[in-house]
Amino acid sequence: MQKGRLEAFSDGVLAIVITIMVLEIKVPHGDELSDLKPIIPVFLSYILSFIYLGIYWNNHHHMMHTVKKVSGGILWANLYLLFWLSLVPFVTGWMGENNFAPMTLALYGFILLMAAVAYFILQNRIIHVHGKDSLLAKALGTDLKGYLSPVFYILGIISSFFIPWLAGVFYILVAFMWLIPDMRIERILREVEKKED
Amino acid sequence: MQKGRLEAFSDGVLAIVITIMVLEIKVPHGDELSDLKPIIPVFLSYILSFIYLGIYWNNHHHMMHTVKKVSGGILWANLYLLFWLSLVPFVTGWMGENNFAPMTLALYGFILLMAAVAYFILQNRIIHVHGKDSLLAKALGTDLKGYLSPVFYILGIISSFFIPWLAGVFYILVAFMWLIPDMRIERILREVEKKED
Amino acid sequence: MQKGRLEAFSDGVLAIVITIMVLEIKVPHGDELSDLKPIIPVFLSYILSFIYLGIYWNNHHHMMHTVKKVSGGILWANLYLLFWLSLVPFVTGWMGENNFAPMTLALYGFILLMAAVAYFILQNRIIHVHGKDSLLAKALGTDLKGYLSPVFYILGIISSFFIPWLAGVFYILVAFMWLIPDMRIERILREVEKKED
Amino acid sequence: MQKGRLEAFSDGVLAIVITIMVLEIKVPHGDELSDLKPIIPVFLSYILSFIYLGIYWNNHHHMMHTVKKVSGGILWANLYLLFWLSLVPFVTGWMGENNFAPMTLALYGFILLMAAVAYFILQNRIIHVHGKDSLLAKALGTDLKGYLSPVFYILGIISSFFIPWLAGVFYILVAFMWLIPDMRIERILREVEKKED
Repeated sequence: MQKGRLEAFSDGVLAIVITIMVLEIKVPHGDELSDLKPIIPVFLSYILSFIYLGIYWNNHHHMMHTVKKVSGGILWANLYLLFWLSLVPFVTGWMGENNFAPMTLALYGFILLMAAVAYFILQNRIIHVHGKDSLLAKALGTDLKGYLSPVFYILGIISSFFIPWLAGVFYILVAFMWLIPDMRIERILREVEKKED
Repeated sequence: MQKGRLEAFSDGVLAIVITIMVLEIKVPHGDELSDLKPIIPVFLSYILSFIYLGIYWNNHHHMMHTVKKVSGGILWANLYLLFWLSLVPFVTGWMGENNFAPMTLALYGFILLMAAVAYFILQNRIIHVHGKDSLLAKALGTDLKGYLSPVFYILGIISSFFIPWLAGVFYILVAFMWLIPDMRIERILREVEKKED
Repeated sequence: MQKGRLEAFSDGVLAIVITIMVLEIKVPHGDELSDLKPIIPVFLSYILSFIYLGIYWNNHHHMMHTVKKVSGGILWANLYLLFWLSLVPFVTGWMGENNFAPMTLALYGFILLMAAVAYFILQNRIIHVHGKDSLLAKALGTDLKGYLSPVFYILGIISSFFIPWLAGVFYILVAFMWLIPDMRIERILREVEKKED
Repeated sequence: MQKGRLEAFSDGVLAIVITIMVLEIKVPHGDELSDLKPIIPVFLSYILSFIYLGIYWNNHHHMMHTVKKVSGGILWANLYLLFWLSLVPFVTGWMGENNFAPMTLALYGFILLMAAVAYFILQNRIIHVHGKDSLLAKALGTDLKGYLSPVFYILGIISSFFIPWLAGVFYILVAFMWLIPDMRIERILREVEKKED
């Protein structure tokens, strides 16, 4: 029951964050197709951020599946993650409206990095409460994607100031890497369900 | 349980999308009835989009009823649908503020078309997971409305550039067609319930 | 289960409607107490609308308690109610920013009237589905408040053009009348629960 | 069940309040790091308010755990609390955009004070309905934090006009005091669960 409300609140915040981003796509004044041109970078950033938030919702969904009891630490680690994700609309807007200028690309990567760290903390809190033999601990295994993402974000941040388009490549790369759903947890869960039958 | 959270998140996003559209109806500065005149087209587009989003929520609600297990594919197909629906407030605002100019009518139809395609993909994902003998597969039957809608949207998009008001007629027509609730699924569900008694 | 999602969606829309109203209270540029003066009417309208939406949420909550099966008619009657309630932030903002000018007061009353009619339709749809001996039908009894409200709204709308402050009195009066919780339904529900014990 | 919807609605409002605050962080026009400078105070106020709303959500979550039946009084006390919390984005924005000017600091404290009083009322309503031997009544004990917070808020409000930075210290102090999770309720709940085993 406790878990239910944690999920409901996270779903609420993520649903709102993902949707208010669209408010950054300001309706242009003209009625020609060419009037949409200035909002193309805003739109592209919107797509990238939508995918990222979708990934977070998806992984959050899978991770919460393994949670059995919710401690105060998990509640706050979850809020800390939501804090960083709540800043995504701001950096998305800044990046889009300034046509992917170096500093905006770097800040976008920084927020992604902070969110990844927060996700990591939440994951550790859950494992801490449920034990090293818990479902999540097993499912994560070496957690390669979890370790690679921050590295790519940092490479992206650095690239922003020298080869801006490369930063974009790094951010898109991480997204693609995660789009492949977290098979590990799904697989372990399936095995557990089989055993229980 | 998995399904519950998918529904909750979709409900959240749809509730927000339907509500932030109202933010596009900017409060006019004067206090006379005539000051409301310029927002009449914005208001009319709001009504149409409200009905469309209501239809999507309604059909989504019926379709999810038939879902028994949620795969990663279903999660992402659902997010893809929400992505296109999240753009409805933008095209509604653009169309309303430009008094139904041709290009804005066409883009409105394009977003509706993309959402219809996304709904189609989600439907297929669900049938794929649940089998061709599943409730949804049976309930859909020939899915006439599902096939007609994209055709009408395309006719609407084309009309936008030649006979703008005809585009509006097409979009309203599709809405009316769907307002007739998805009897098929309701009927099949009722039969199944009867058998179980 | 069906009912659960209807409630969740309605809760979502009402929560957003009630909260985005606060976006109409624009942050003033100065930092003195006197800089808040121009937003006093906006704030007063916010309070009134917050109470009204609270009443709707409360009564909706009680009414839904009596619902056992959800028909397509109920779904759409509910969406129709949400449509009118979604316009409350707009009329609240218009009324507040124009210092309760006659026409804005009248439109505010008109939206309240339309919402009341929509609530009435939803109520009838539910009774239609559940029968005249249903809990809701019994609980409503003569439904005095339900019949008085539209009368007061209409008196308020007419007053707007002649004695503006009287319109405000009417709208506040209806709110107070409803603030007394819907004892009828609560009482009947308690009796039913007693019998079941 | 009744409780479920109360929680869902509160979660919805809190999720939206916490998220629309981010809309007050307006995207700056330049693309340099220095362009972010003017929004630093807005950002700092955002962090403080995010923590406060997180605390309220957390404590609300714990308190609702002890609730067994929901009366009309509890519903309205809850709405009254949500009303004051819904004003947090406004005072956060005003304080941030005016660089923590005295009057904005005082109003921020005033809203926190009103929310604390509302929380107190809700708490009393719940104890009133559930009896003095109820879980919540026991868990609260002397409720030191509950009594200290309003005192600190009032000290903060007074400080605003003489030593502004001290007001900030008071507000941060209360936040830290509450960040230590409400062990009392958690502990009592755990004991109760033990006894039941």
